[in-house]
Order: sequence, then C-alpha cells, then structure tokens
Amino acid sequence: MINKVLVANRGEIALRVIRTCRELGIPTVAVYSTADADSMHRLLADEAVCIGPPPAVRSYLNIPAIISAAELTGADAIHPGYGFLAENARFAEICERCGIKFIGPSSEVISKMGDKAAARRIAWEAGVPITPGSEGVCSDAGEVRRVAREVGYPIVLKASAGGGGKGMRVVRSEEELEAALTAARAEAEAAFGSGAVYVERFVERLRHVEVQVLADAHGNTVAFPERDCSVQRRYQKLIEESPAPGLEPELRGRMQDAAVALAEEIGYEGAGTVEFVLADGEFYFMEMNTRLQVEHPVTEMVTGADLVAEQIRVAAGERLGEHNLEPVGHAMEFRINAEDPRRNFLPQTGPVEFYNPPGGPGVRVDSHLYTGYTITPYYDSLLAKLVVWAEDRAAVVRRSLRALEEFAFTGVETTIPLHMAILEDEEFARGGVPTGFLAARSFQSSEGRLRLSAAARAAS
Amino acid sequence: MINKVLVANRGEIALRVIRTCRELGIPTVAVYSTADADSMHRLLADEAVCIGPPPAVRSYLNIPAIISAAELTGADAIHPGYGFLAENARFAEICERCGIKFIGPSSEVISKMGDKAAARRIAWEAGVPITPGSEGVCSDAGEVRRVAREVGYPIVLKASAGGGGKGMRVVRSEEELEAALTAARAEAEAAFGSGAVYVERFVERLRHVEVQVLADAHGNTVAFPERDCSVQRRYQKLIEESPAPGLEPELRGRMQDAAVALAEEIGYEGAGTVEFVLADGEFYFMEMNTRLQVEHPVTEMVTGADLVAEQIRVAAGERLGEHNLEPVGHAMEFRINAEDPRRNFLPQTGPVEFYNPPGGPGVRVDSHLYTGYTITPYYDSLLAKLVVWAEDRAAVVRRSLRALEEFAFTGVETTIPLHMAILEDEEFARGGVPTGFLAARSFQSSEGRLRLSAAARAAS
Repeated sequence: MINKVLVANRGEIALRVIRTCRELGIPTVAVYSTADADSMHRLLADEAVCIGPPPAVRSYLNIPAIISAAELTGADAIHPGYGFLAENARFAEICERCGIKFIGPSSEVISKMGDKAAARRIAWEAGVPITPGSEGVCSDAGEVRRVAREVGYPIVLKASAGGGGKGMRVVRSEEELEAALTAARAEAEAAFGSGAVYVERFVERLRHVEVQVLADAHGNTVAFPERDCSVQRRYQKLIEESPAPGLEPELRGRMQDAAVALAEEIGYEGAGTVEFVLADGEFYFMEMNTRLQVEHPVTEMVTGADLVAEQIRVAAGERLGEHNLEPVGHAMEFRINAEDPRRNFLPQTGPVEFYNPPGGPGVRVDSHLYTGYTITPYYDSLLAKLVVWAEDRAAVVRRSLRALEEFAFTGVETTIPLHMAILEDEEFARGGVPTGFLAARSFQSSEGRLRLSAAARAAS
Repeated sequence: MINKVLVANRGEIALRVIRTCRELGIPTVAVYSTADADSMHRLLADEAVCIGPPPAVRSYLNIPAIISAAELTGADAIHPGYGFLAENARFAEICERCGIKFIGPSSEVISKMGDKAAARRIAWEAGVPITPGSEGVCSDAGEVRRVAREVGYPIVLKASAGGGGKGMRVVRSEEELEAALTAARAEAEAAFGSGAVYVERFVERLRHVEVQVLADAHGNTVAFPERDCSVQRRYQKLIEESPAPGLEPELRGRMQDAAVALAEEIGYEGAGTVEFVLADGEFYFMEMNTRLQVEHPVTEMVTGADLVAEQIRVAAGERLGEHNLEPVGHAMEFRINAEDPRRNFLPQTGPVEFYNPPGGPGVRVDSHLYTGYTITPYYDSLLAKLVVWAEDRAAVVRRSLRALEEFAFTGVETTIPLHMAILEDEEFARGGVPTGFLAARSFQSSEGRLRLSAAARAAS
C-alpha cells in the first residue's frame, strides 16, 4: 500500500504523476522551488512544500530538503519523474534507508545501469546483442587504440557515467583519436565527475529504437511496443513515435525478448526503457534508462496503458495487470520547447501572454503551462508535449500538422515551426529516418513558416 | 470528390468539422454572425464569411446568406453540424438544387424522419420494436382518448414535428388528458409551427440508449457500439457514455441490427443516430436523428473512428472503410454549459477571464473557448465537451473527476460542479440510471462543492 506520494520533480512530469495519483485516490505532495511558486504542479497537488531557491542543485537536487519534505508531510513514497534525481542511486538508497518507497528500481539496479560500460557487459551476458567494442572502461589511451584497431574505424568514444551525448565523440581515423579522447574525457569529467570512457564501433545511419519494459516484484516482466526516437537535435529527442516505421513484427519480437531478458537478468522492478541502435535490420544494446521516459505517452496512446499507474501499483507490491502489447494505430509525440528554431535555438524566457492548446480527436497535451505563466531560465526548455494518435502513421502526420497549427503560444518562440517543417519533409514522411536526419538539414524561414532545406538533403 | 467545405455552424462543432477537413486536406469556409467575429471557428477556417447579425434566424438559420457564402467562396459541400439547419429538409433540398453537396442524408430522408409519427410507422415496418400507441398523428381529442384507453395509462403525448421534449406531456389518467393535450398542442404549435401530436404508452424508469449508424451510397451500413444518454436535465443530455453500463452483448447486437434495418429501410446515407428507449431489458424505437450528434466523440473514443471524416468520405461517394465495431474500454462525455447549477441553471454571459482545459492520458476536450472569449446571450450554452476514456467505467469515473477538478474557468459559472456531484453519486457509479435520475435529486452546495441530495433519492 502507498498512502501518499511526494513528487520530486516539476513541470509537466510532476503534473503527469499528480494526475494519476488523483485517479488512484492517493494524496500527493508537490515540492517546488521559489521560482516555481506559481507552477501548476504546486497548485494541483494536495500539499506543497517549498524546498529552496533555484538553481536545481539548491532545490530539486537537494536530497535532504526533499527527504525532509516527505517526512514532514508523511509521504511514504517518492516518484522522481525523469531527470533531476530519477537515476540517482544515492537518492534511491537514502529513500530505502528512510523507509520511503522510491518509485523505481532498487538503488543497486540504478547503480549498475548507470555505469554504461558495465551495463554493456551485463547486456552481453543476458544474450542481448551489443556492438563490437571494449569489454568495459578502457584504462588508458593505449587500450583505446588497440580496441579501435580491433573493431575498425569509425568508432565512438562514450562516457561510462554518461548520457545525453556528453563525453561522446565519433572518431573516423587513428589520427583523430588522441585529440578526441582528451576532449571526451574532459567533457565527461566536467559533466559527470568521471572521465572514464569506453569504445564502440560507430554505426552509420543508425536509428534510435527503444523498448519500454515493466516488471513487478513477483517475477513478471512485459515489453511494450517499441518507440522510434530518431528525430534528435544534439542527442536530444524532439519527436518520438510508436510503433517504429517499417519495423517487422519478427524484429519487434526479438527486441522485446532482448529487453525482457536484460530486465530479468538484473532483477528489474518498475518501468524502464532499453535503448537500442537499429541499423541494417539488426539491433544493438545502447543503454537502459531506469526511470519513466519523457516519451512514455506514445506507448500509452497505442496500448491504452497508464504507465505511471503501473509504476505505482508495482511499487506497492502488486502484480502487473493485463496489458495490450500489440500497438493499436500509431502515435507521435512532439516536444514543444522554449527555443527559437529560427535563431539557432536561442532559449526563450518571459511571460506566456496567451496559451491555448489544441483539442479534438486523437490529441493529448501534457503541459504545465497556462496563459500568464512565466518561463524562467532555470530549468529545461520543455513547455508541452503534444501527443497525437490516429489509425495509421500517415493520418498521424496529417492530424499532428492540424494540431500544431492550432497550438497557440504568444510571447515566446517555440519549436512548433520546426515540428511542422519536419512533418512536411518527404524523408520523414516515408519514415525510418536515421538520428542524423536533422543535423543534415538546414532551416529556412519563409512567409512565416520554417522549411527544411532540400539542398542539404543529399548529406543525410 | 469534395474540394471545399462550408461549415454552416458555430462553436465547438464548427471547430470539430474544420479540424477533420484540415486533416483530410480539404479547405474550409466558416460562416459567422457579427456576434461571433472573434470566434475560433472563424479564426481557424481557411476563409470566413459574415452572414449577418444575431439572433440565429438572421445568420445561422439564414439559408440565402449561407448559400450565397458557399457560391461566393466556391464551396462545393456544406457540413451543417448539429442544431440550426442540420435537420432542415428544405435547406438540404436547396443545397441539392444548387449543386452543393449537403453532408448528410437526402432531403427526402430528413423529411421522413423529421415527422416523428411517420418515423414510428417506418420503424415498425422495418421490424424495429415500437411502444404501443397511435399509428400516426391523432386527428382529434377523441382519437387520442381512444388510443390512450387501448394502450393503458400512463401515456405520453409527443409532437410529431418535435424533439428536445417540446410539446411532450406525460399523462397518468384520463382526467388529465384534455388539459395535457391542449398544452402539448399549443407548445408544439409555438415551437414547430405544427400542433400535430401522437400517443405512446409511457415507459417508467426508461433509459435513453442510442445507436450510431453510418451508411454509404453503395449499400453498406454499419452500427457502432451504443451510447447511453440517460443523464438529462429537462430532456437535455448532460452526460453520455459508451458502452451502456450493464448492456448484454446479445441485446447490443439486437439494437445494432434494428438500427441497421431502419437505416436500410429508408436508404439512409451518412452518419445518423437511432434513439431507443430501454426498459426492463427491452428496447423500443424513439426517433432517428439524421445528423451528427453532440455526443459522437464517445463513440470515437471507444472505436478510434473519426465520424466526421466518414461523413465527408461518404458524401464524396466513397465506400465505408473498415471499422472496429466492438467497444474498447469506456468513454464518457460531459457537457460543460454556461449555466449556474447552484442558481437553478441561470444562463451565464460575459468574458471568460481565464480558461485552461485539462490534459494528460485519456482526456479529450472539444471547445471553442479561450482565455478572453466572451460568452454572448444569443446561442446555446455549450462551452466545452470533456470526453474521457479509460480501460473500464470505474476508471473513467475516477479520471473524469480528476479532469473536471483541473478544468479552469473563471469569470463564469458552469455545470462542472454538477458533473462532479453526479460522478460522486452512488446510483450513477453503479451505472444504468434512468432518465429521471437527475429530476429526482436536489442539489446542495456546501464548502464550495455541489452535492446531490440523498434525501431525494427514494423518489428516483
């Protein structure tokens, strides 16, 4: 039994968790920074506790303040959302020690999967395909060079503590190696406090395809239909969809089996995502995210599941319910960020003078915004997630364009024009674009609309 | 082929049609009254034509102005929405004569079904169960008395040209008959220009259950899962749901077969709804609405269909697509009206100071509102339709409460508190309430919330 949930997050994901808790009849506690005093998550939760000022390190990453808030309000469980403390093994461990249920896997599992080099080895042990590369972290430049020669160039250096592309470098020849290694290590050291890197063969024209898993404490693990998250900018996902365009059911089945095998190998509990590289009809393990993903709603739209409700049920010791694991129709999510795509994604701050989300059939909006909301510079740029369902992918593209055209935001620029330009791109319309899709295009603004440049297409 | 659609309506239903047209790539023409110059349907359509001032008789019911707008803009089809001219056979006939495709059945079919007494006879000929009563319109008071004696009291007098409860009277004994007949005829004459009435045996504790049909010009007719619309106030539906609680699949099948038989009998084309009375496990024909219903989204939520898209495809001469005719999960629609349930449903007008619709999983909102919109006194009171889907009815009830709590409206009172009170009512929670459900309750306001009175329950 879970009696009260503290939501250790802000923005749309805090709202997402509060919504499901309300539906389950579980009271909620919001925590908020002084910069978020007028935030929807504060207003909609049953209780709210101020945990400090911005930046995040003084509030949303302030473990003692959050634990105190839970103890003060009698919350017996904490949902970490994504980002902030969601994959912080120490936070999960402190929750465990304080007798507060961390809604997610054990601190041990978070720790194992957080070490990306170690996770690769575990995946290999579980029989999950991995790209050729080092067995673990490379101890020195010599080992990096040796492994790179073995697997053949191009290779990619990755930070073992990493994620989000930080400390990552593609190396196309041995001449580039030393400079790249120095840069990768420095970046990883700065971002994660560890310069440890490992080596993988670099896969060209790869797609990012991931599998959502859900496991209970009674030995049941299921894998949902896959999500394709290949439309990215600087390793940040922009559009996600389910199912992945053109994926054969046989390949889907093998990816789902691999994801379940990995989850079972590590005794996973709760919702997690196994990320794969897909190239030339084969898939390879990339990493596992031991938390809810930003893009979880596309899975909810094609299956009818409420993944947050399942996280809470599993955390309360219940068994997994029955789930529809075959995708029905098609869904896409668009991340609407406070960035100006016409001015190199310049971050936007200030008041949202007018906000009106789209409605009608097949449209879901997850957002903490409202008319009069002020965007501060302290947090990530996500303003809203537009999630669109229709009977097939072509209908989703048409419906999404309609919904994006309707989406009213004044006062700030957003990524809406970029999403519309992507939806009008021929290669995107065909489906199955690689992660380099967006980087290979230039953006042109004409007659108030943004268009992807046709000239740059040959390079993609 | 349809090249351009004029939407002869306003409010949420005009938006609904414009949304689907956009998705189908069909340009739209909005018509608007001078009172609706700032309306969303005007702003979102590709073109817009002002057709006159309020009230509706000078604009939305002004047939020459609407036909002129279609000719002026080159629209080759008109979608009438619901209300206004949607069931006006003369309008459909004028469209036919002007070579404009009326998106709906033929004027002949509209005319036949618009005469409720004649429709009853047609239903009977098609083998659809009808309640005992007069064969058609009763010519005089003597015939009414004779039929009433035959079928037995209580009986109900209904206006043949009617709908929405106007010109309708329940009569429990012969002593009441003459006064009731005079009143019914006068009301019918005033509302419809015809005082013709017919007699039906009155069914106690009835439920209003209706079946959505869809037919193409190639002889294909399908029936969707039923909708239960028993939560009404003064014959106006307030909450609709699909499927109907507790309805056995066998009975559903018989109702669907009856609806298809009637549609085929009259050569129906397009989307229509056959309304039934359900009592003691048996169903009886009530009337057929030859248009899209306000509550069509609940059917869309449990089947994934886009009924407006189907209307347009059928009107363009295409064949019906494949449809899922088994309900998946459960859906409810809540009509959010500009009425104050705490003050006897006093109509509300004026500016909506702040508007923020709910979001998250399973929530659809169809509304023409936005922060700053001004509600005028000229049109019906519907501000928004909240449509909620979940895996079963109990989950829909919980999710709907959550969504209604989130729904932000300031500046006007709405029916939101009434919907919340209904969702918290035990009899409603059990499902299958009769149409008298709401009339048998009194409303009490306490601590800012509205509650249905337990004391009045025995009368329901």
